[in-house]
Amino acid sequence: MRRTAETLTPDTLDLKNYLSKKKAVVDSALEAYLAETKGPASHVVDAMRYSLFAGGKRLRPILCLAGATAAGGTEENALPVACALELIHTYSLIHDDLPVMDNDNLRRGKPTNHKVFGEAVALLAGDGLLTEAFNLIATAEITQDVTADVLLRVTSMIAQASGYRGMIGGQLLDIQWEGKTANPALVELIHTRKTGALIMVSVTSGAILGGGNETQIQAIATYGEKTGLAFQISDDLLDIEGDSYAMGKMAGADQKKGKLTYPSAFGLDRSRDIQAKLVESAIESLALLGPNAEPLRRIARYIIERNK
Amino acid sequence: MRRTAETLTPDTLDLKNYLSKKKAVVDSALEAYLAETKGPASHVVDAMRYSLFAGGKRLRPILCLAGATAAGGTEENALPVACALELIHTYSLIHDDLPVMDNDNLRRGKPTNHKVFGEAVALLAGDGLLTEAFNLIATAEITQDVTADVLLRVTSMIAQASGYRGMIGGQLLDIQWEGKTANPALVELIHTRKTGALIMVSVTSGAILGGGNETQIQAIATYGEKTGLAFQISDDLLDIEGDSYAMGKMAGADQKKGKLTYPSAFGLDRSRDIQAKLVESAIESLALLGPNAEPLRRIARYIIERNK
Repeated sequence: MRRTAETLTPDTLDLKNYLSKKKAVVDSALEAYLAETKGPASHVVDAMRYSLFAGGKRLRPILCLAGATAAGGTEENALPVACALELIHTYSLIHDDLPVMDNDNLRRGKPTNHKVFGEAVALLAGDGLLTEAFNLIATAEITQDVTADVLLRVTSMIAQASGYRGMIGGQLLDIQWEGKTANPALVELIHTRKTGALIMVSVTSGAILGGGNETQIQAIATYGEKTGLAFQISDDLLDIEGDSYAMGKMAGADQKKGKLTYPSAFGLDRSRDIQAKLVESAIESLALLGPNAEPLRRIARYIIERNK
Repeated sequence: MRRTAETLTPDTLDLKNYLSKKKAVVDSALEAYLAETKGPASHVVDAMRYSLFAGGKRLRPILCLAGATAAGGTEENALPVACALELIHTYSLIHDDLPVMDNDNLRRGKPTNHKVFGEAVALLAGDGLLTEAFNLIATAEITQDVTADVLLRVTSMIAQASGYRGMIGGQLLDIQWEGKTANPALVELIHTRKTGALIMVSVTSGAILGGGNETQIQAIATYGEKTGLAFQISDDLLDIEGDSYAMGKMAGADQKKGKLTYPSAFGLDRSRDIQAKLVESAIESLALLGPNAEPLRRIARYIIERNK
């Protein structure tokens, strides 16, 4: 079953509607992939599910699905990997919230995982989500029309983007540089690794699973790179300008911890300028792609709108 | 290059020599796969390498290599996965030693990871090792003579054995039941998951990578199941009978923490009996395999010898 035609033309694409439909697709797949269990280890599955279903926007999986259709493929073939990306994102939040890291009590308007399950179980729940992500990708061949070669390529890309070369490296820098003087080059590096790498690999793996050619994949990867950085700048801006209720976490938390952010390194106005240029350039990189890439273009624009 | 003939016949196999040769092969591959790096995230790589090269016996990778040759294949094709298993084992030790888990200060005679690098970096180092393990498996196709299908099968098996269905589930039970009354069935369940699952999957993935047929793979999996449990019983016995210096960790630590162990559930003599029967039965399960499986038989016997 191909679900592309009705939502993808520029004129008819209503982004809110698109995002909410795709979120429902992802949520129901996640529910199937990580169902409640009974038995001895069910407590850790409960903890994994608690954070997985705590109200995430599913941005990374949606970018993965949108990457697949932009490259001319079906969402179905990207769905297990899309869900794996959300598992990885969720694990990173759980570990990041732990007292030894950012020590956050609130996430998406709910108590963080360790506040509910204790630190040991939260640690294991994060480990469990990360591990299960790779099981999900590895078993996708059985149900999806994708080759083993493609799945291995995607596995390696995702592991590299999430590992010390990417997200974990970014988190290390993030905590190492807490409270130090903002340095523009360093802030860009931290954001690119901590948030950008996983967003970039989300949309790129979608393009690969969607059967895109290398030119398409490269264009979509460039889009992902710019969009990922723009998204983190938007998070920085919301920390200053957003309200805690709408965000589901404490506004000003980054400032209080002395995190290196775009506003702290560049000031508010210049941060907004940089972000706008990134979004523009992300959209330009999709020039060779047709109306199938419209959701990607709209999502990029939405990043700026969310902090207005 | 096939390295099988010279060491595998029952008469000539000197286990100490075999283990030390294979350890050297694994160590040098690990050094190549996770080399020192310069640059911003090098500190987390240093922490990953600290525990990875802290003197592990490389039991899991050696079982993987021995599984490959037992199934008639080459060690070379199993080497990246063998190393990935050591990365996973090392990550589990780092997270297990953290204050929120077992709070251990000494491992293999050296300060634990968080004692040297701090808890935040130790957490990230564990995450980094787990993530890199899957990158290593996914990129093995490029250098090894194995198909993508085989690598995906092995990825899924390893992720399931390390995840909430296996090792992580076992660790949850291990901490949940600390200080509670020993229950034989539960102790077996904890040990099977916490230690047994990864050992079983080590030797089984070797058999798959070695191109074994399903009968051979099943026989080797049964061997792995019994051996894994026997190995954890040996760890329990060493906690009571071993000396801290030789073990590189504090003897009696499990007792002090009130861990559920075989001796606490079955008594010392019965634990030794159970272990001996497991080893016997592990060796019997290899009956259909010829002299190529001799290293596996010797390794099983060695498990009993190490706690004599």
